[in-house]
Amino acid sequence: NMIQTGILTVSDRCSKGEAIDESGSNLKKIIVSGELFQGEVINYECVPDDKEVIKETLLDWCEKDLNLIITTGGTGFAPRDVTPEAVREIIEKEAPALSVQMITESLKVTPLAMLSRPVCGILVRTLIVTLPGSKKGSEECLRFIAPGIRHAVDLLVGRVSQVQKTHA
Amino acid sequence: NMIQTGILTVSDRCSKGEAIDESGSNLKKIIVSGELFQGEVINYECVPDDKEVIKETLLDWCEKDLNLIITTGGTGFAPRDVTPEAVREIIEKEAPALSVQMITESLKVTPLAMLSRPVCGILVRTLIVTLPGSKKGSEECLRFIAPGIRHAVDLLVGRVSQVQKTHA
Amino acid sequence: NMIQTGILTVSDRCSKGEAIDESGSNLKKIIVSGELFQGEVINYECVPDDKEVIKETLLDWCEKDLNLIITTGGTGFAPRDVTPEAVREIIEKEAPALSVQMITESLKVTPLAMLSRPVCGILVRTLIVTLPGSKKGSEECLRFIAPGIRHAVDLLVGRVSQVQKTHA
Ligand code: NA
Repeated sequence: NMIQTGILTVSDRCSKGEAIDESGSNLKKIIVSGELFQGEVINYECVPDDKEVIKETLLDWCEKDLNLIITTGGTGFAPRDVTPEAVREIIEKEAPALSVQMITESLKVTPLAMLSRPVCGILVRTLIVTLPGSKKGSEECLRFIAPGIRHAVDLLVGRVSQVQKTHA
Repeated sequence: NMIQTGILTVSDRCSKGEAIDESGSNLKKIIVSGELFQGEVINYECVPDDKEVIKETLLDWCEKDLNLIITTGGTGFAPRDVTPEAVREIIEKEAPALSVQMITESLKVTPLAMLSRPVCGILVRTLIVTLPGSKKGSEECLRFIAPGIRHAVDLLVGRVSQVQKTHA
Repeated sequence: NMIQTGILTVSDRCSKGEAIDESGSNLKKIIVSGELFQGEVINYECVPDDKEVIKETLLDWCEKDLNLIITTGGTGFAPRDVTPEAVREIIEKEAPALSVQMITESLKVTPLAMLSRPVCGILVRTLIVTLPGSKKGSEECLRFIAPGIRHAVDLLVGRVSQVQKTHA
């Protein structure tokens, strides 16, 4: 019942080796620790802010039946930020309440959360969530939605759950 | 000035007679009681979690000039949950503030509201809102948005209203 | 570093001269005053609730490299309200957190904010935000998102900013 997770860091600078991927490695550490949910990191990669590369990587990972893909980076207002657009083009179903939860909780921390552009959604049986690029912001957002992730994955994989009957 | 309402329960099990439609019948009772707004239930049906069937039913009801269509069910993370996708394909205009209101108020009740995927919108003169499938969740969400529904319908049918001048 | 701003009032009545554009002129006054951010109003126009006219005007202004376009009006539930649909058709990237900020803060003022249908997004280097049509509502919403606008524009024009590193 471990959540099979992929972590995709989206960053031109990290993918060129010009910066260290602190956000991705921090997210990996948190997931492996099990403090949020029982998960294991199957894929962990860093790609540039290139919409086609992001899409290809996500599609590849979804075919591997990952339960959860977490992206970090590329969700802001810089011209090269295209992670939400990449995700939106491949998901079959949007999960707006996860995005609203991230936004409203982040706004309690900083008004700069107005600049985040999260997209959450489902492709077949994989939940994809887009976190901000900073170590602090990405960790915060993962914590904000963690209570929903376990139940989301249980429903996606068809594990019988009382959740479905009472809340969907 | 009664709000002509349709209630569409989306549930494989209810449509096969394997479960009782407690949510739909409860919503009907609430609307008929008049406690939220002056409404009457013109259509009340149960269909399976089939996107085409949902769309056809909604389009048929919109042609009958219903003011309001309430769906219950099919908005979660289970593979067969497709109500939001069906609604999104037929509405002309989204009404995201109704969805945000449902999400943020539901999140005060339970973190599982992160798993809801509401879509609200307009087709010609009919407001369509998607409520969760549970009796409790659907009643709560209807109450959360009830203050907006009366004004929304007044605007949709072109009844002169101060609301339009002051808030749209 | 002045934010080059366009204000587009969308209103059949104002464009015919049957009503005075109090909202647009009030927004202009607030921006010019500099109390929210350092801005200047480059374009200020009133157009009818016609989707094609709205789109053409927005595209024309974006080509002029405005940093910010603020629309007021046409975001409600009346049949002729089409501003969000016009904006959605031309933006390349959505900025949902700005919309959620407007919605959740407006809901603290009035439940009628459920009837707003804001869309915020980016076309090339221009941020477009849709405010309600009333003088009071449009001023409130501009104030709710003002803290984000300066940083958004800095990122869009590629001004080096710590914001990008820490929150996107
Ligand atoms: Na949305």
